[in-house]
Amino acid sequence: MNQTPLSEFPLNPRLAADTHFVTSLELCNVLLVNDARFVWLILVPRIEGAIEVFHLDELQKVQLATEIDQISGVVLDLTNCEKLNVGALGNIVRQLHVHIIAREISDAAWPGPVWGVGTAKPYSAEAKSTLLKKIKSRL
Amino acid sequence: MNQTPLSEFPLNPRLAADTHFVTSLELCNVLLVNDARFVWLILVPRIEGAIEVFHLDELQKVQLATEIDQISGVVLDLTNCEKLNVGALGNIVRQLHVHIIAREISDAAWPGPVWGVGTAKPYSAEAKSTLLKKIKSRL
Repeated sequence: MNQTPLSEFPLNPRLAADTHFVTSLELCNVLLVNDARFVWLILVPRIEGAIEVFHLDELQKVQLATEIDQISGVVLDLTNCEKLNVGALGNIVRQLHVHIIAREISDAAWPGPVWGVGTAKPYSAEAKSTLLKKIKSRL
Repeated sequence: MNQTPLSEFPLNPRLAADTHFVTSLELCNVLLVNDARFVWLILVPRIEGAIEVFHLDELQKVQLATEIDQISGVVLDLTNCEKLNVGALGNIVRQLHVHIIAREISDAAWPGPVWGVGTAKPYSAEAKSTLLKKIKSRL
């Protein structure tokens, strides 16, 4: 499938509502989940209609892996976390998206997965701005 | 990190206890989780000491992506499932492993993730044998 230009890419409304836009990479938009309990980024390939990773063509798959690697590095550098969780689930939002989450033994969901656990704790405007700056400075 | 020969690769004991061995691919061992509630395969790269995907070298990362793709195709072909869930978590078992799970709207965890939900329902010897044959015939 062809890549959609950034300005025309229709982000799923639920993803848009639950996240802050960070930046756009070659293939993916990078989003910060608005939940201060976890440092949690999401990559969304700008490929309209893609639901599963195998819907991407070979070059796009390689690029997605590269960007997962890049964002994993950013999250690790930011948090020095105990473990990264990387996953493409999409049971609720079908638009293909990949979660990259810093996990800590002290976090609200450890050692379980984060999805569906408790209630998101939105960032304050200041915390959001500070974190977005830290992320962008590493990209 | 160098790849460990198949015969010498030390699979984490918990992964070994919870799964049946399916086959070995170029990089990974393929395991079937012993839980008949889900068609759930796991890829374990035979790279001793790897915990995160970025611990693999560039060629190993590409090979892992190829094998995730291959196993995703097998799972989809077997189940025609509603959604694939693909994830590398490792909060409990640190040895790098990637889950590939067929999800159905009627399954025991939908639309949440499967990890930590309820109690595994082991396969009968016959069901296990039948499913392993079906998986192997697609590899």
